Amino acid sequence: MSQQVKRADAQRSIAAILDAALACLGRNPEASVSEIAKAAGVGRVTVYGHFPSRAELVDAAFARAIEEGHAALDGVDLSGDPREALARLIASSWQLVDRSRSLLLAAQSVLPPGRIRALHAGPMERVEHLVERGRAEGVFRSDLPVSWLVGTMHSVMHNAADEIHAGRVQPEQAAGLITATVLSAFAAPPASPL
Amino acid sequence: MSQQVKRADAQRSIAAILDAALACLGRNPEASVSEIAKAAGVGRVTVYGHFPSRAELVDAAFARAIEEGHAALDGVDLSGDPREALARLIASSWQLVDRSRSLLLAAQSVLPPGRIRALHAGPMERVEHLVERGRAEGVFRSDLPVSWLVGTMHSVMHNAADEIHAGRVQPEQAAGLITATVLSAFAAPPASPL
Repeated sequence: MSQQVKRADAQRSIAAILDAALACLGRNPEASVSEIAKAAGVGRVTVYGHFPSRAELVDAAFARAIEEGHAALDGVDLSGDPREALARLIASSWQLVDRSRSLLLAAQSVLPPGRIRALHAGPMERVEHLVERGRAEGVFRSDLPVSWLVGTMHSVMHNAADEIHAGRVQPEQAAGLITATVLSAFAAPPASPL
Repeated sequence: MSQQVKRADAQRSIAAILDAALACLGRNPEASVSEIAKAAGVGRVTVYGHFPSRAELVDAAFARAIEEGHAALDGVDLSGDPREALARLIASSWQLVDRSRSLLLAAQSVLPPGRIRALHAGPMERVEHLVERGRAEGVFRSDLPVSWLVGTMHSVMHNAADEIHAGRVQPEQAAGLITATVLSAFAAPPASPL
């Protein structure tokens, strides 16, 4: 085989493994490398050839899911009142998180929180721009760093996934809870009693 | 040895292992079972006799740190304006989280978020009572479940630990950021534009 053919083969094999990883981890956060290899129609050795550990495979699958989700969010209208735009962005982002809850659990059990946040850099940049516009227009608070506010929204969304997993929140309640919490947290602070 | 002497020996050995685990994981979140055994003055086999896996040892050490922290928070004055009481509770709780950041990282890398939250049941109950009093007095919002608000505070505090780890927040800024965020998130929502 030429080098070029080998490279094309390897790319197809990686794509099939990632497809299989997304499908298997999307059903069961503890899906094993053997199960994923079987679903991809390749051997375990081939999987380990591309991804030296299960954690690296989960990382790559999670990265692809976020990339696809980020592209899907291109369709959200972020114009107009920044609070309404943020509510629309939360509703659409939450749909993606909700569909990926099993994958998120898989990621949380093998990747540190810092890595999970780093993989969200693209989607978080979108929130960042919206927060900056809202601050410029005086509807979001300017007394806390933008990166802190974006991290707060990220944590509140992932808290919703945990609360659903624990049975304390129903999936259909989550977007409303997240929006109500984040809009208050981002609002200019009320006259403080302190 | 009598059964009683054996039991007392086992208890001393477990206590020494947990002391060593807290010391080692408090310096290095990736401290190994061998390092912890050495610091405790016992063999690895003894550690595994009490804690079948590193994750179970981290779980037990983390549980003990939370229990000690929970006892330390008994001294916080929770009377008076619930917002001021919450600010005092956040400041004291954050000191504990800040001192335990290395241990928290160790826990986050081997325990799922649901387990980490479950281990905080004691401290969270204290927040729950304060939130309920604040709702009864009309200063905290009543439109979202209490458990959701408590989970939000938990997430915001752990987000602060992650932000410090990532170098985006300085440790001395954290209590102020957490308090400003949580007090807004817990306030009765402002007149909504939506």
